[in-house]
Amino acid sequence: MILQHTQALNSKRIILASGSPRRRELLGNIGLKFEVLVSSFDEKLPKERFAGGGEYALETARHKALDVAGLVAEPVDLIISADTVVEADGQILEKPDDEEHAFAMISSLSGREHQVHTGVVLVLPRELDPATGAPPLIRSFVTTTHVTFDTLPQEAIRAYIATGEPFGKAGSYGIQGAAGAFVSGLRGCYFNVVGFPLHRFCSEVAALIKEGKL
Amino acid sequence: MILQHTQALNSKRIILASGSPRRRELLGNIGLKFEVLVSSFDEKLPKERFAGGGEYALETARHKALDVAGLVAEPVDLIISADTVVEADGQILEKPDDEEHAFAMISSLSGREHQVHTGVVLVLPRELDPATGAPPLIRSFVTTTHVTFDTLPQEAIRAYIATGEPFGKAGSYGIQGAAGAFVSGLRGCYFNVVGFPLHRFCSEVAALIKEGKL
Repeated sequence: MILQHTQALNSKRIILASGSPRRRELLGNIGLKFEVLVSSFDEKLPKERFAGGGEYALETARHKALDVAGLVAEPVDLIISADTVVEADGQILEKPDDEEHAFAMISSLSGREHQVHTGVVLVLPRELDPATGAPPLIRSFVTTTHVTFDTLPQEAIRAYIATGEPFGKAGSYGIQGAAGAFVSGLRGCYFNVVGFPLHRFCSEVAALIKEGKL
Repeated sequence: MILQHTQALNSKRIILASGSPRRRELLGNIGLKFEVLVSSFDEKLPKERFAGGGEYALETARHKALDVAGLVAEPVDLIISADTVVEADGQILEKPDDEEHAFAMISSLSGREHQVHTGVVLVLPRELDPATGAPPLIRSFVTTTHVTFDTLPQEAIRAYIATGEPFGKAGSYGIQGAAGAFVSGLRGCYFNVVGFPLHRFCSEVAALIKEGKL
């Protein structure tokens, strides 16, 4: 938990390496102050090289974090990066290209459970990595949430696509919007599905504070 | 699912019998248009008369719905009422009276699982109840979600209370705010914890539409 540490954290320079308005909002909700610096990393790693969606998301987040670490000139205390993907039947689903792509993705989620993975990478540019003895220290983890969608009539999927919500979202849906009504069950961290695993992040940051690294 | 029905629903007169801004937002998210009319029902039913938090929340929602049904002069198609309570170890937790009350409630949730129950009552004032042959038709249900809080240091609880968020909220927390970081696990409907079980509501409304009642 870090609510008791937010005042101390707010004297640090923290960068969120993500353009997602949802991540910004979630981190704002817990009182964290940060700058946003979006990585120019092209999020297109070859998926076949990864054992699953979690590893893929984590590697994308690592690239984004290190890219942003290379961009900042002034000293920074913490860089936070994250990437979220949906995985259904071993298929990794990212943002849809167009309406038909969104329709195919949402249809593939209808009436069943899928997984949402968020890979989070924390970079502490001023701290030493115990393995190499040189900065930066990197902490990373993956959080997975199991989400079940109700069986969705085609007209419901079309009506949802017409809202415009699927675009720019992994798996073509935003649980915090109208697609919330699609969800018949959820196990794990809800915020992870929105795009950032708040509880796990807070635990990791609290541990870094306890170890004197932040 | 009702996303494909929202256009038809928006020609109906729908009243939300709840002052909760969270419920208003959740129903707005799925594109529903409605008026808000808050019941003057004093939400203080004797808890000992109920087998559990779900039954208690449902009965409170029923009173609010019927109170509002009696207030409206013009014809109405649907009245939606809901009440949310937190239950921990058989204790029903509602809104806190003051800071110490909030501290005691949140402390009692620390490091364990609790249940959040929302009782929802739908009143269709123009339809006949099959049992009595007279209006209104009433449909009601309870949705329960299991939420686990991490072990919370006292300072984290105090810092959370200082944000002002616990006040006006069942169980002294709002999962959609800073207390989201307290939640190490969730099973069931997230939106039910916010205050309204979107998926179940949509299923019930879709069934009413299918039966020609709405």
